[in-house]
Amino acid sequence: MNDRDLLKTISPLIGTTETSDDCAAVPLGDGRLLLSSTDMLHETTDFPREMTEFQKGWMSVAVSLSDVASSGAQPSHVLVAVGLDRPERLKPFMEGACSCAETYGAKVIGGDIDSHQEFTVVTTAFGIVPESEYCSRVGAQDGDLIGVTGVLGRAQAALDGHVEFREYLFTPKPEVERGQELARMGVTSMMDVSDGLSLSLWDLSEASGKRMTVCSGHLPLIDGTAYAQQCGLFGGGDFGLLFTFPAGKSAEVLSMGCHIIGEVSNGSGVFCDGNLLEKRGFLHNWQ
Amino acid sequence: MNDRDLLKTISPLIGTTETSDDCAAVPLGDGRLLLSSTDMLHETTDFPREMTEFQKGWMSVAVSLSDVASSGAQPSHVLVAVGLDRPERLKPFMEGACSCAETYGAKVIGGDIDSHQEFTVVTTAFGIVPESEYCSRVGAQDGDLIGVTGVLGRAQAALDGHVEFREYLFTPKPEVERGQELARMGVTSMMDVSDGLSLSLWDLSEASGKRMTVCSGHLPLIDGTAYAQQCGLFGGGDFGLLFTFPAGKSAEVLSMGCHIIGEVSNGSGVFCDGNLLEKRGFLHNWQ
Repeated sequence: MNDRDLLKTISPLIGTTETSDDCAAVPLGDGRLLLSSTDMLHETTDFPREMTEFQKGWMSVAVSLSDVASSGAQPSHVLVAVGLDRPERLKPFMEGACSCAETYGAKVIGGDIDSHQEFTVVTTAFGIVPESEYCSRVGAQDGDLIGVTGVLGRAQAALDGHVEFREYLFTPKPEVERGQELARMGVTSMMDVSDGLSLSLWDLSEASGKRMTVCSGHLPLIDGTAYAQQCGLFGGGDFGLLFTFPAGKSAEVLSMGCHIIGEVSNGSGVFCDGNLLEKRGFLHNWQ
Repeated sequence: MNDRDLLKTISPLIGTTETSDDCAAVPLGDGRLLLSSTDMLHETTDFPREMTEFQKGWMSVAVSLSDVASSGAQPSHVLVAVGLDRPERLKPFMEGACSCAETYGAKVIGGDIDSHQEFTVVTTAFGIVPESEYCSRVGAQDGDLIGVTGVLGRAQAALDGHVEFREYLFTPKPEVERGQELARMGVTSMMDVSDGLSLSLWDLSEASGKRMTVCSGHLPLIDGTAYAQQCGLFGGGDFGLLFTFPAGKSAEVLSMGCHIIGEVSNGSGVFCDGNLLEKRGFLHNWQ
């Protein structure tokens, strides 16, 4: 049983639309949408041991900002709930949290403090966006192309001990401006790749009901090795954006420094170099 | 070190206004405020062993609805992040969460699923309110009276084994309608008493910079015993509202079924029957 299977057990309760996206969208009644996203992180599974408290705070906020950004909105406010094993961790942690929020134009406006055996954090980020600029995972069209931002696999390489990529893992940079630029340009669907490219392509494919086909030779990887390709396809922790867009906008996408890695067609499934791509990445698992 | 002391160490970072209330308020730019509140609960400290998963879900949502309600708003949406030790707990838990939200006119619109050694939940509730109807902990005036809703101490009595009060502890009822009625009537400050009356009076006193004086004979208690008074003053887990209001509105407050328990004056501190009231209640503590 993994988190995506589990989510399916409660989607009749909450709604299929609601459980198919990292970011919830609520109409404000005046042409704007309130976007919100919440993420739980905790010591044993999410924070590598070498991270400082400041970096843990930064990363905790970054994951939620990234979800709001991938919906096309400027994140405006963040709530931070912290379960503390030791109280002295709070201040440096919150310094990192506030620093990340401010760097990306948002503000930490509150939260909750709890005592907890295991250091646990839940960040909730908000953003407001005109309805016309909102992007979700749903909307990819037959004939669209698939784009990504940034380099894939750096966080996984850092996890594997390649210290030269450590900053991408420890102080990830959510693509807040780029998300808004892409939304205004007219992407048809978008999400971040924090669970890995493969899993994200499967998410996008299932949400839009389309087939996604990518070419490994077009992936922006850390180098040309087979290891780099594995990191790029299946490694989690990167904060790039994955999106689909009408082919006519290719020049614009390339001029923004993004990479075109494949195309959307009618059908289902995710294919890489002609083969079905393994649905594997960052998943929470239970026995 | 307890959570209120700890909060003071980060209030320069986040802002004194932001850390002095359970509910954050953000202007939407059109005369309305977006209210949001987040709360972390976990197995060992927050859920009595006899509770069902459904009840845990209900309670988790109720705590956040109560914070939004005590700001005068109708809670509209809820996010639920769950850290699960066993995946089969999710469905009955979310049934309780959704049931509570729906009962009070709100909707669960998303969340996050994590694997966690200890069952841990963070709920985040939103509400939108006209600026004129917003209540915070700040605003009590010299000469105001102090009111509460409901009966004090039932949750503590249930915790102590008095099974006749168990429903108040296991399926608490946030005062969602009453909060809005009181806000429209013109209360000057308001919060819920979930950490206990004494601690809540101290919070209100410090936030407004006023003295709060209550009379034990006026407290709505479970019975006339000294034990009931201790539960009413220092027990946590009740979901009533504590508020201050201009004395001229006393008849209106009484006609709403609320209790008048004391008065506000210039000065500081909280007094009960002429004595300084011990600042004690539900606090998270670290060694």
